[in-house]
Amino acid sequence: MSAIEELTAAFARLPGIGRKTAQRLTYFLLKQPKEEAARLARALEAIGERVRACSRCGNLTEADPCDICADQRRDQATICVVEEASDVLAIERAGEFRGVYHVLGGRLSPLDGVGPDQLAIRALLARCGNGGHVTEVILATNASVEGEATAHYLERALSGSGARISRLARGLPAGSELEYADGETIAQAIAARRPLAS
Amino acid sequence: MSAIEELTAAFARLPGIGRKTAQRLTYFLLKQPKEEAARLARALEAIGERVRACSRCGNLTEADPCDICADQRRDQATICVVEEASDVLAIERAGEFRGVYHVLGGRLSPLDGVGPDQLAIRALLARCGNGGHVTEVILATNASVEGEATAHYLERALSGSGARISRLARGLPAGSELEYADGETIAQAIAARRPLAS
Repeated sequence: MSAIEELTAAFARLPGIGRKTAQRLTYFLLKQPKEEAARLARALEAIGERVRACSRCGNLTEADPCDICADQRRDQATICVVEEASDVLAIERAGEFRGVYHVLGGRLSPLDGVGPDQLAIRALLARCGNGGHVTEVILATNASVEGEATAHYLERALSGSGARISRLARGLPAGSELEYADGETIAQAIAARRPLAS
Repeated sequence: MSAIEELTAAFARLPGIGRKTAQRLTYFLLKQPKEEAARLARALEAIGERVRACSRCGNLTEADPCDICADQRRDQATICVVEEASDVLAIERAGEFRGVYHVLGGRLSPLDGVGPDQLAIRALLARCGNGGHVTEVILATNASVEGEATAHYLERALSGSGARISRLARGLPAGSELEYADGETIAQAIAARRPLAS
């Protein structure tokens, strides 16, 4: 296989990038100064060498513990449980949460062979365990069937920990139109309606 | 900048890849075995080291002259002139053309400072020059305004060469880019190429 074909094939292995897009990316880089491809190559090597999982929360990081776990201004007694490290980024972007995280590394999915032992659940229980100072656990797994099942499992597993357990609210996304919301979302928004102060 | 941010930024420099997609690609690679990112890094380095322009036609290649110029079964007397190396790939995919190529390296675009001297036009004229054995030149620049202008310029520049000059048939949708056309459209355009009045 030629170098051009190899790069095209490597790009096409990325999610959401088909054969034609991969080819376009390859020829784009071939038209740029060589430094452009070299820069991307270096960045790819760097993540392999420098990025690891935080030994405390499982977030991807270059320092251990990660910046969030090491930040004493953050509330170490409130743990937000997410499926993936990319979810940490999404929540941080929102700028609302001031506690710490726990990354499961996936969701329960028996059909795919993912049970509790394949996720970082034991480590979560240890963090919330006896004599721990954790006061609240927010279950922020996805609002999908598997995310819900995972949250349900964790809710029971954590019931003896003494920590308050909560789940992200379900309802209409900010700025959305009722007309375009799906029935399931509207049903949940109605079921979880909150009284307005009058 | 962290390694994760650096890779995200590098991905986001590619055409058609925004900030969110770049992030998704980065976290995808972080979740894969390290070999996956290393494979892409190696492929990127390889194009810098192994790929060069064919000294005869300007096509991107690892051998010089390129496989097409070196192929004695191909008609060396028929030259298909294209803007970019990626256009060679598109025409080869159509499987209709059995001649050789000449890659201009762009199109005439005075507003962007691209004049005849910025393209491989002198080399094309030398290939088609006096005593040469070139019998036909197919102008396969894009069916865009600049591609048409480039073809028009070449038509005049080549008028004294003795070669027949033709242009791809307007089977191509007007204003579209050759690189994205399907093979059947390209094949029809080659078969129905029309001679230009001289």
